[in-house]
Amino acid sequence: MTWPTPIEWTPGGAVRILDQTCLPQREEYRELATIAAMAEAIGSLRVRGAPLIGIAAAMGVAAALRAGDGRGRGAALAAVDTGCDTLGRTRPTAVNLRWALERVRSAAHAAAGEWPGVAAAVRAEAQAIWDEDRRMCRRIGEAGLPLVPDGATVHTHCNAGALATGGIGTALAPVYTAHAAGRRVGVIADETRPLLQGSRLTAWELGAAGVPCTVIADGMAASRLARGDITCVLVGADRIAANGDVANKIGTYALALAARAHGVPFYVAAPRSTFDFACAAGADIPIEERRPDELRCLAGQRTAPEGAAIWNPAFDVTPAHLVTAYVTDAGLLRRDELVTLMT
Amino acid sequence: MTWPTPIEWTPGGAVRILDQTCLPQREEYRELATIAAMAEAIGSLRVRGAPLIGIAAAMGVAAALRAGDGRGRGAALAAVDTGCDTLGRTRPTAVNLRWALERVRSAAHAAAGEWPGVAAAVRAEAQAIWDEDRRMCRRIGEAGLPLVPDGATVHTHCNAGALATGGIGTALAPVYTAHAAGRRVGVIADETRPLLQGSRLTAWELGAAGVPCTVIADGMAASRLARGDITCVLVGADRIAANGDVANKIGTYALALAARAHGVPFYVAAPRSTFDFACAAGADIPIEERRPDELRCLAGQRTAPEGAAIWNPAFDVTPAHLVTAYVTDAGLLRRDELVTLMT
Repeated sequence: MTWPTPIEWTPGGAVRILDQTCLPQREEYRELATIAAMAEAIGSLRVRGAPLIGIAAAMGVAAALRAGDGRGRGAALAAVDTGCDTLGRTRPTAVNLRWALERVRSAAHAAAGEWPGVAAAVRAEAQAIWDEDRRMCRRIGEAGLPLVPDGATVHTHCNAGALATGGIGTALAPVYTAHAAGRRVGVIADETRPLLQGSRLTAWELGAAGVPCTVIADGMAASRLARGDITCVLVGADRIAANGDVANKIGTYALALAARAHGVPFYVAAPRSTFDFACAAGADIPIEERRPDELRCLAGQRTAPEGAAIWNPAFDVTPAHLVTAYVTDAGLLRRDELVTLMT
Repeated sequence: MTWPTPIEWTPGGAVRILDQTCLPQREEYRELATIAAMAEAIGSLRVRGAPLIGIAAAMGVAAALRAGDGRGRGAALAAVDTGCDTLGRTRPTAVNLRWALERVRSAAHAAAGEWPGVAAAVRAEAQAIWDEDRRMCRRIGEAGLPLVPDGATVHTHCNAGALATGGIGTALAPVYTAHAAGRRVGVIADETRPLLQGSRLTAWELGAAGVPCTVIADGMAASRLARGDITCVLVGADRIAANGDVANKIGTYALALAARAHGVPFYVAAPRSTFDFACAAGADIPIEERRPDELRCLAGQRTAPEGAAIWNPAFDVTPAHLVTAYVTDAGLLRRDELVTLMT
């Protein structure tokens, strides 16, 4: 694949991210060396995508531990705990964030030795989370390959691709896997208001990979599905409840309803880190509400009058009965098979 | 009502429009004196809304006839025919445009006398179209009043209000009528990508009228309906086929599907000039596809990468089976009663 990696270590052990708020206009990178810098980057969506923010947060804790060698084990664990708490509060909906931070916290507390030992364990755990995510993406791609036959047109929402993960994506993994296998595949990308991750990010990374992509406004999806030539809908997820309800970027639910109305299969692709068996149903998933200005202004220009109220939830919940199957690193699962992920 | 009129005659008989592309930032007016100027204003959506573009086109023909008094009857009729042909090609979907232009053309050909006689007949007919539209809006408001009880929350899409008509609107007419009757009513307005008529225009005119309005992104509508407190959906129409299928702003169909999924009544408000009994079904309605840049750029900034394809239909078709009833100037009609409008 030819696109730049959305995250990497700097030679000095800080975190270098592709600032996704600048795409598609500029490829701009930022070096993040502190918890505060990483928290800002996650909160402002410079780094985003449920799997990637888990990886980024874990790497951010590791980066922040580079300084302070002389301060002993207790100080190191306190720094890890504070860092995890701060980063865990940046975004409420994606469960991967808290899952990754819990792994880092446990690794730190289980580590032997003083500050350097704790720091090394945290860095190793962050690297492991990243490596596992890359492998999970590959397995999702293989599990979803049968859904993307030669000539397929896949409809997706938001960005659940390479820019959202440590690998080839979740929803886009089957697309890239099919493309790499020589199949002709095209993608319809909802632009995904308010922050346009579909037109800015999905179209950009598909273009870089040589996969044809057509951008539409979110409100056009039902009309596009009505034309009858969409093979399937494939979206990612920020959290999946025990009953199979899916929290994902706002607009996903409307797309699921339209897919159902037109008999188009609707698949949710996610690694096991996205499943939260502590949440019984979608109603238990906290939904992040973001700043009104994301909707009130566009590129610095006001689009709604000052007096108008704004409702700006970042996610919605698609009930499990609208999901045809889940494309996971453990294979293609029906709703009643999700329990096999509960380990 | 306290908002400025979207159209009026200048003292000299030209047409003065509120340039709706400048809202909500600036209230800017333009004087249009020629067919070319009116065609540009309609094509670029400075004046928009199915009923209003019919009125504007008719007034535009009248304005263009002010010059040329000495040139005789044949020249006047030729000017009317050419003007109607040019204006009729500006936008393909709304049937009111062609309906209004045919009325003006017939009035011209039926008029007695030379150029001044023809010009006077055209101006009178344009004024009649406007006056009738104002009355139809009022009747739509009365017909829809029972749908908007005290405490109601109405969900709408695009702008089918005072800015889209010669009166108090179509979809918003029942809202204004209820508001004027002292009922508390609030509106949820989809922002309506790509051109944001919901956030720019609907929120603006509701604000001016003192009706509380909350703007959401189009992709949030299904989620908003899921909350269970929407009284009804009320939208306008650009053309309604004989079988009751409705062409309206892109995104309407998705809203209708979501309303159905949540058991929320879905009403289409339109004057009889919007019904086209020559179209058997929605599939016969030509759907305007607009410039890719409407989706590719926002406020002059590129949001999709250069290589990405764009699909940008301005309208979609909502099948009649999703429409609870039609709110018309002849009352609240069920699908099987639409035939009564066929006169």
